[in-house]
Amino acid sequence: MITAKARAVHGPDKPFKATEIQRRSLDTHDVLIEIKYAGICHSDIHTAHGEWGDVNYPLVPGHEIAGIVTDVGTGVTKYKVGDRVGVGCMVDSCGECENCRQGEEQYCLNGMTPTYAGVDKYGEPTQGGYSTHIVVVEDFVVKIPDNIELDAAAPLLCAGITTFSPLNRWEAGPGKKVAIVGMGGLGHMAVKIASAMGAEVTVLSQTLNKQEDGLNFGAKDYYATNDPETFKKLSGSFDLIINTVSAKVDMDAYFSLLTLDGTLVNVGAPGEPLSLNVMSLIGHRRSFAGSMIGGIRETQEMLDFCGEHGIVPKVEVISADEIDEAYKRVLASDVKYRFVIDTSTM
Amino acid sequence: MITAKARAVHGPDKPFKATEIQRRSLDTHDVLIEIKYAGICHSDIHTAHGEWGDVNYPLVPGHEIAGIVTDVGTGVTKYKVGDRVGVGCMVDSCGECENCRQGEEQYCLNGMTPTYAGVDKYGEPTQGGYSTHIVVVEDFVVKIPDNIELDAAAPLLCAGITTFSPLNRWEAGPGKKVAIVGMGGLGHMAVKIASAMGAEVTVLSQTLNKQEDGLNFGAKDYYATNDPETFKKLSGSFDLIINTVSAKVDMDAYFSLLTLDGTLVNVGAPGEPLSLNVMSLIGHRRSFAGSMIGGIRETQEMLDFCGEHGIVPKVEVISADEIDEAYKRVLASDVKYRFVIDTSTM
Repeated sequence: MITAKARAVHGPDKPFKATEIQRRSLDTHDVLIEIKYAGICHSDIHTAHGEWGDVNYPLVPGHEIAGIVTDVGTGVTKYKVGDRVGVGCMVDSCGECENCRQGEEQYCLNGMTPTYAGVDKYGEPTQGGYSTHIVVVEDFVVKIPDNIELDAAAPLLCAGITTFSPLNRWEAGPGKKVAIVGMGGLGHMAVKIASAMGAEVTVLSQTLNKQEDGLNFGAKDYYATNDPETFKKLSGSFDLIINTVSAKVDMDAYFSLLTLDGTLVNVGAPGEPLSLNVMSLIGHRRSFAGSMIGGIRETQEMLDFCGEHGIVPKVEVISADEIDEAYKRVLASDVKYRFVIDTSTM
Repeated sequence: MITAKARAVHGPDKPFKATEIQRRSLDTHDVLIEIKYAGICHSDIHTAHGEWGDVNYPLVPGHEIAGIVTDVGTGVTKYKVGDRVGVGCMVDSCGECENCRQGEEQYCLNGMTPTYAGVDKYGEPTQGGYSTHIVVVEDFVVKIPDNIELDAAAPLLCAGITTFSPLNRWEAGPGKKVAIVGMGGLGHMAVKIASAMGAEVTVLSQTLNKQEDGLNFGAKDYYATNDPETFKKLSGSFDLIINTVSAKVDMDAYFSLLTLDGTLVNVGAPGEPLSLNVMSLIGHRRSFAGSMIGGIRETQEMLDFCGEHGIVPKVEVISADEIDEAYKRVLASDVKYRFVIDTSTM
């Protein structure tokens, strides 16, 4: 076993505490990663607070992991000591079901193994990236391009792939008008990626507070959704809308912004059911879709794309002692645009 | 002006009465059609009862029209006297907007002119197919294949195209598993068309009452949705679901039947908003779409397809005096599978 320093919560309303956790000894295809940076995703907060179902505390969150390979199992072929690598939202899947065989491990029919708050194939609870080390089977490790710093790379493993995948699948690109709803961790990545793909990007944010950043990230237009005129003006405008907001919004109002055959993809998952008028879809043959992270192959594609286009998230690096404060600030939307923990401070 | 016999309702709770209506004299590109048969669509009932907004009574419903050309305007090039033709849910559109130019007149950005309960470009209210004659601009007239009887052709103009269009667009065909929800006028056409396209078709109906018909129409399987086991057994089974039911159903239960990347298309429009859990879509990157009839070019494609494959609806021909009774029976789901009015009884 390998001892790692970590930060864990011990209950839904408890603060983070320094602790030590055990990582398994390397199996044949395992890679030992010295974690350098771990991003803070909104999902970490939902899970840590017990809002997404029962949690086996103590819990070490974190599924935006960037680090360096420090050891490899005897059968590892893809990585060697010293490689700059990342780990995202999952660390294993069955590998045999139809979806896994298509490289869509996130939709594994037997249930993928989440990076934390899951149970691995050895029957052990998984613990995430707020930690100094992690052991992951090589097939769930991705390579970070040389020109991306590790602190900036971390959020790509969730916020990056979660937005890249639907933009890729629904073909954001030249001639396409794409709206990004929300300018948080996911939204700001979506703006950068969609712009780099060649789409004409519009940001739809509650207010104009982050307008300057949005335009700098590549958006052509930026509108406030708290202004009803926005919905009138942009009616029938977009081929694709990526909704990164987890809160319940007026879906029909957003559908009205789509062209004929346009699609709105939710990557945020509100806790409560949404209401919609089917006529909003029927009227212009619109679609409402959902998308969850991306497969490992596509995650590597995303990293390579970001490397080629020099796309990185805007991050605020914090020490391990600042996690509780960072959670509060994320909940208050007071972050530009992703907190990343420097794990050397564990 | 041309005088036509018709059946009209004079108020939301009034019976149909024999009447005479005036059709406009033929303009350059107009076609005069002697209507032989007119189907009864559920939309006729909603509109006649004033359930879809204010109606200018007296109203002559009917947008499933089959007949014979008896006169043509001086500029008509597509039709001649004696041609067997049909008219569906719309009789005009702007012809200039982006959607019209794509042949998607049903989504005309300036509003298509519905066959009844609309206002035409002359400022006159449109009156539908429960009538002996109608005048329609040739671009909104379609040709009925020789091997399709006119009584059976009528329902193709709405029930046929409404189901053909999404099956065509979402590529029902060999290797695709398609479920049809509801075995009414639309549903039974969807089963026949999807089967002829080569898809493996399953019917999901409330009960097994129409199972024998469903299998005869081409379905491979038939399940009752009032049996909760159906949803467990068929979980993750279908690439495409066409929901023909207008009533509010448990959408999440139906989404759970889709494969990865599967799509559920609603062609029925419940009057009240639907509720759904976004996780039902996100979990397997599913889509929820809507589709409304089809364009004129696609309507002709549908008719040609039905001609080639010998597909016709199963109809019950009634006289004009039986419309009120037929409405009651449609509302009680007591029709196999479409009422068609013999307009010689007007």
